This record gives sequence, C-alpha cells and structure tokens, in this order.
Amino acid sequence: MAENKIFIFDTTLRDGEQVPGCKLNTAEKIELALQLEELGVDIIEAGFPISSPGDFSSVNEISKAIKNASVCGLTRAVQKDIEVAADALKYAKRPRIHTGIGTSDLHIKAKFNATREEILERAKQAVKWAKNFVDDVEFYAEDAGRTENEYLARVTEAVIEAGATTVNIPDTTGYCLPHQYGEKIAYLMNHVPNIDKAVISCHCHNDLGLATANSISGIINGARQIECTINGLGERAGNTSLEEVAMIIQQHKTLGFYTGIQSRLLNPLSRTVSDVMRMPVQPNKAIVGSNAFSHSSGIHQDGFLKDALTYEIINPEEVGADSSKIVLTARSGRSALAFRFQKLGFQFDRNDVDTLYNEFLKIADSKKEVSDDDLQIIGKSHSAQTA
Amino acid sequence: MAENKIFIFDTTLRDGEQVPGCKLNTAEKIELALQLEELGVDIIEAGFPISSPGDFSSVNEISKAIKNASVCGLTRAVQKDIEVAADALKYAKRPRIHTGIGTSDLHIKAKFNATREEILERAKQAVKWAKNFVDDVEFYAEDAGRTENEYLARVTEAVIEAGATTVNIPDTTGYCLPHQYGEKIAYLMNHVPNIDKAVISCHCHNDLGLATANSISGIINGARQIECTINGLGERAGNTSLEEVAMIIQQHKTLGFYTGIQSRLLNPLSRTVSDVMRMPVQPNKAIVGSNAFSHSSGIHQDGFLKDALTYEIINPEEVGADSSKIVLTARSGRSALAFRFQKLGFQFDRNDVDTLYNEFLKIADSKKEVSDDDLQIIGKSHSAQTA
Repeated sequence: MAENKIFIFDTTLRDGEQVPGCKLNTAEKIELALQLEELGVDIIEAGFPISSPGDFSSVNEISKAIKNASVCGLTRAVQKDIEVAADALKYAKRPRIHTGIGTSDLHIKAKFNATREEILERAKQAVKWAKNFVDDVEFYAEDAGRTENEYLARVTEAVIEAGATTVNIPDTTGYCLPHQYGEKIAYLMNHVPNIDKAVISCHCHNDLGLATANSISGIINGARQIECTINGLGERAGNTSLEEVAMIIQQHKTLGFYTGIQSRLLNPLSRTVSDVMRMPVQPNKAIVGSNAFSHSSGIHQDGFLKDALTYEIINPEEVGADSSKIVLTARSGRSALAFRFQKLGFQFDRNDVDTLYNEFLKIADSKKEVSDDDLQIIGKSHSAQTA
Repeated sequence: MAENKIFIFDTTLRDGEQVPGCKLNTAEKIELALQLEELGVDIIEAGFPISSPGDFSSVNEISKAIKNASVCGLTRAVQKDIEVAADALKYAKRPRIHTGIGTSDLHIKAKFNATREEILERAKQAVKWAKNFVDDVEFYAEDAGRTENEYLARVTEAVIEAGATTVNIPDTTGYCLPHQYGEKIAYLMNHVPNIDKAVISCHCHNDLGLATANSISGIINGARQIECTINGLGERAGNTSLEEVAMIIQQHKTLGFYTGIQSRLLNPLSRTVSDVMRMPVQPNKAIVGSNAFSHSSGIHQDGFLKDALTYEIINPEEVGADSSKIVLTARSGRSALAFRFQKLGFQFDRNDVDTLYNEFLKIADSKKEVSDDDLQIIGKSHSAQTA
C-alpha cells in the first residue's frame, strides 16, 4: 500500500546544525549525509544555501555525494534565495527546493508588515520561481501551528496549484497539542480540493515536549512526511526525534504505516551525531539514551529476568543499542543479585542469597552502584565462611 | 472549579532516584523534598521503604520535614511491605501508601504465575491492609497500559470499593499512543460505577517519547493526577517530565486545568536535581534545556527581534530561565548582527552592516559561534577605516 509509506525528511544538517555550537564543516556534513542515506531517510535537508558561502558549499558537495535520497535546500520566499539554492543543488540526483513564508497573522504583521493576500501571492510566486529549476518543490507555511485553518487551506490549495509537490505544516513554536495539530491536518485533508496532488508534511518543534506526539497525530490524520532530526536536535528545545517516530511506526503495526529506516543503525548514528556536533544526549532519552534499556528497580529486574517483555517493548538489538543492563543498586532485589552471582560463577542457594543480600544492601546504601568487584569480594568471603 | 485542579505527584525521589547513578543520601533527599514542596507539588513519593534501610530512613526523615504536601511510600501488594511503609510514614502530616500489583496478562502469568481472579483478590487485600494504617491509599495497576480494559475496570472498581482514594493507571513500558491511553482512561470513567469516589492518576513512561502527551491525553479524558519527575528522570527512558506537563497546563488555558506549581522555580530546581543526581539535561530539553530559549537562525532572530512572540510561546522568566539568547552563527542574519553591534555601543548604518556582515560570515564559517570579542575587533577595525 504505497499510500502508507511515511517519508522521513531529515533536517539534522539544517535545523539541527543551526543550533548554537553544532556547526559542522563540509567534510563532516558529507560524512553525516552518507550515513543518513544508509539509515534510509528519504530526503536530506542539507542546508540553507544563501545563508553563508560555507553552507552553499556543503549543499553543493552533499548533492554530489548522495545517490538515492533527495537532497533539499532551504530558502525564504525570495527570488535570490531560490536561485542560489538551485545552483547549490545542481549536481543532485533528486534535488528539492524548500521554500516558504510565515502565514500566521502574527508573522504576517510582525515580520512582513503585509496582508494575507500579499503573503498568498508571495507564496505562489516563490513556488513558481522554484519550479523553474526543479520538479520537486516543497512549500512551508511558517507558524502554521498558529495560522487560522481557513486561510491555511487557501494557501495550501494555491501553492499546490502553483506546483508544490509537498506542503509542510510547521508547528514552528512547538505550541500545538496533539489533538489540535491532528485536527489541523484533518481540516486540510477535508477542505483543500487538490490535496491529493501533494504530500502533507509535519514539522514539529519540541518546546512543550510534544513534537513526537504531534507528528504521529499528523500522520494518523493524513500527513505522509515527517521532518525530524537525529537526537531531536534543533532550534530551542529541538525538532521531532527521528528515532522516536521511526520506532513508534515500527512498533505500532496497527497504525498501518512503514518507513525506509534501518532501525539497527539508530544508536550508532545517534552517537556519531552527538560526538561530531558535541551535543550530549541525556541518559533518559528515548531509544538512544544510555539508560534507555537499563533496569534498576528490584520489581523491574525480577520481572525482566522472568520475561524481558514484562518491562521492555523494544529489543535493544533492534535499534543497535547494547543489550539490556541490570544495574545493581539499593533498589535491586534478591533475584537480580542471585542472577548476577550465578553469572560470576558462584553457586549459592536461597539461604546464601538471603545472607548475602544484607551484605549487598550495606554496600548499596553507601554507593550508587554495586560493581562485580564488590560482589566478588562478598561472594568469596561468604564461600570461605561456609566452606 | 475544584474538579479542574490537576494534582502533581512527584516521584523524582522514588522512580527518579532508582535510576543507575542517581542514588542520594538522606540529607540530599530531604533537601530536594523541601524544594519540591516549595515548587508546589501535591504529593511527594519519597521512596520504597522496604527496599533498603537507607530508603526506609529517607522516607521517615522526609515525613518529619514536610509540612504541607502529602508524603507517599511505595509498596508491593505484600503485607510486610505495607507495614514497613506505614512505619516509615508514621510522622507524616499527610501520609499516603502507594500499593499495587501487575494486572496485564503478561505480568499475571510471567511475574506471579497467577490468575486474574487471584490478582483481583490480592489487589483488594493490599488496599485493605493499607487502610488499617492510613486514609489516603493509592493503588497502582502495574502495566495497565497493556491490561485489557474490561478487567482493568473490574480491578479499579474493586480497589475503590476496598478504600483506594487514588487509582494509578501506569503505562509501565511506555508503549501506549496518546489516543490509546486517553481511550483507556475514558473507558474507566464510563465503565467503573464508583469512579467518582477516587482520583484517577496517569503514570507514563517515555520509552517512545510519548510520556508527556499520554499524561495530557489522560487528564483530557478524566484523570486528575499526573505522576512525574523533574527532568523526566526515571527507569530506562524516564517518566513524564514535571516541567513539561506543568507548562502545558499553564499555557493551554482552554484546557480548563490548573496546578499548584510555581513555574519560576522550574529551572532552578531542574539544575539542582541535575547536579545532585549527576544526570545531565540535554541542551534541547523542553523548558529546562540550556538552549530552550536560544535563537540562532537568521530568520528566527530577525522575527524574534521584531516581536518575541513570533518564535517564543513562553517568556523564559516565567520558568526561571535566563533571558532569551541570540547566538551569532553562520546562520544569523544582518538584523541580529546590527542589534548586537548596537548593544556593544557601535553606531553603524545599513551600509556599514552590509560590509561588516561579510567579515562576520568569514569568522562564522570558521568558528561555531561568533563572540562579542570577535565583533569588537571587526567593529573597531571598520570604524577606524571609515573614520
């Protein structure tokens, strides 16, 4: 069912890279672009060519290096931006120009001091300019999350009429709740007569922690592209996390969607992006955090050792993570302790473990984590006493 | 409207503290508990008293120190656990015992090798034991996210009948989608005859990045308590982030909810928790990340300087963060550069800024971030040439 493919539009190299401290040189960008292509993303947004000579050069070089994915360059709805982007993309096998303009009344007034009708004309004109250079034109209605739906539908219809093949509905400020964002997409699906001529795209920001949920709500309601970044990097609180939406689609088969993402590459690429962009990933980050598959409470460890599925919905191997960890702390129980002693080669019965558990808790109350070395010491001491 | 108060149940000191590396000593826990009370949380889950002597002592000392918030201790549905928790809580002004058992078929079989009927009996019994010690008893139906709704409704009805004043519906494995979790809560609201006698609570995990969205979906559908942690700490990918749900409720007034959270304390407490638990918060974390209020792209900076609301939905002061930052990088535009030169005391006109912008881009393409020192050098050099 071709209609259920969700296109993954990666903007790590554009919306991610513009983050304070994340700037990369061209060689680093090419390397990441090749890894994103291997990961299976459909579109790589490679930069904003007019913004600086370095950015132009990166988009240009990535266009030469990438074989299968579309390569996309960002522009404002400005003729010069579009010409420069087209030039930067000239070697791309599948070039895409991403142009657009703010459509919320606040953006129209504060940024452009214009009217809705003027913005509508500029939107159409920008798409037509881009169409002179490439077939594949994506239009973004900036601040769509706060744009009144009836006007947004008119803009969407007009840019599709002008030739846009994808229309991006960004929640630029990360304000929407999932049901609101979903209703916005549903409104467009139901009110834009030529909506079947374009793919609707979700571009959500994470200011309230809802970017992933909003993107999923978007595709449930008819969108077929998600714009996202590795590790959720991006302006302010970042963009939708690629790894989260990819795994939701993979784990929730009943949604009826699929992507081209090779999930086993998610953790390796997450680490590469974190290293090269010098942006730490917090241990409790979904899918790619260092603790994402660690179990430390006694109740969880006991259940996990009986059946991993009791506390784990994803096999860590499936996302290229190290295997699940059982960390021994003061919250661990006897079953995890017995299991670890067994792995260390001790043969203790239930009574031994009861005695050793008290020893263990003394160490655990004074240290954050009880190591295998600690266990060797108390295990050997116990064996000597009972031998 | 009392029914629209959302109770904030903080479990930083229990579900957060059981994370590998996060263990605190009693003095540290008391200090955090006092700060959580000042933040305005309604319930502080202080620990799991039977798990270790250190944990017992922490719950005991926190019970003495806290004046207004409820203090809660976790137990399994085991008599000894409940007796020990009651003992740990004996000095609390408002003690709450939190007891429960796994209710999904997987937990019933893999963890307890029991039947649904047996688990139902154990659930009721646990609540009755707890009721012998305290009025305020919360029951958790572990793995409720994967528990069949009809059985979950029977368990809920039975524990309310037995005296539970709050019933916690945990998505223990972080598997639910927001609409699924919301439908589960709605099902209970519609099918449990005595549901008005208890508060329904959301306890969501973040394995797919959906904990915050699921909790909000829960309250929209009838729940009135959210269990959460500072910085979203917790097992694996963590729990719902307190700061995210508090700010969603505060910013989305049309939902009709409120909490007792003093939002200006969110960033200071986030930093304290991160420091004392040695758990870094990633820069792109919503509300409390170091970049949460930073603007670096030229388009955003230009808009932000015209009207902050174009790219910001929360005033950083409202959540105790440093004021918004404009970071100058290769993606910055002329308006941000002109603004910064003006702040540094230079008086440049439009032509000056055009010339200086090219100088600026050369530096920006070679460095991640252009500093005020860099600008002083090129600004003074330009002034000297044109003087």
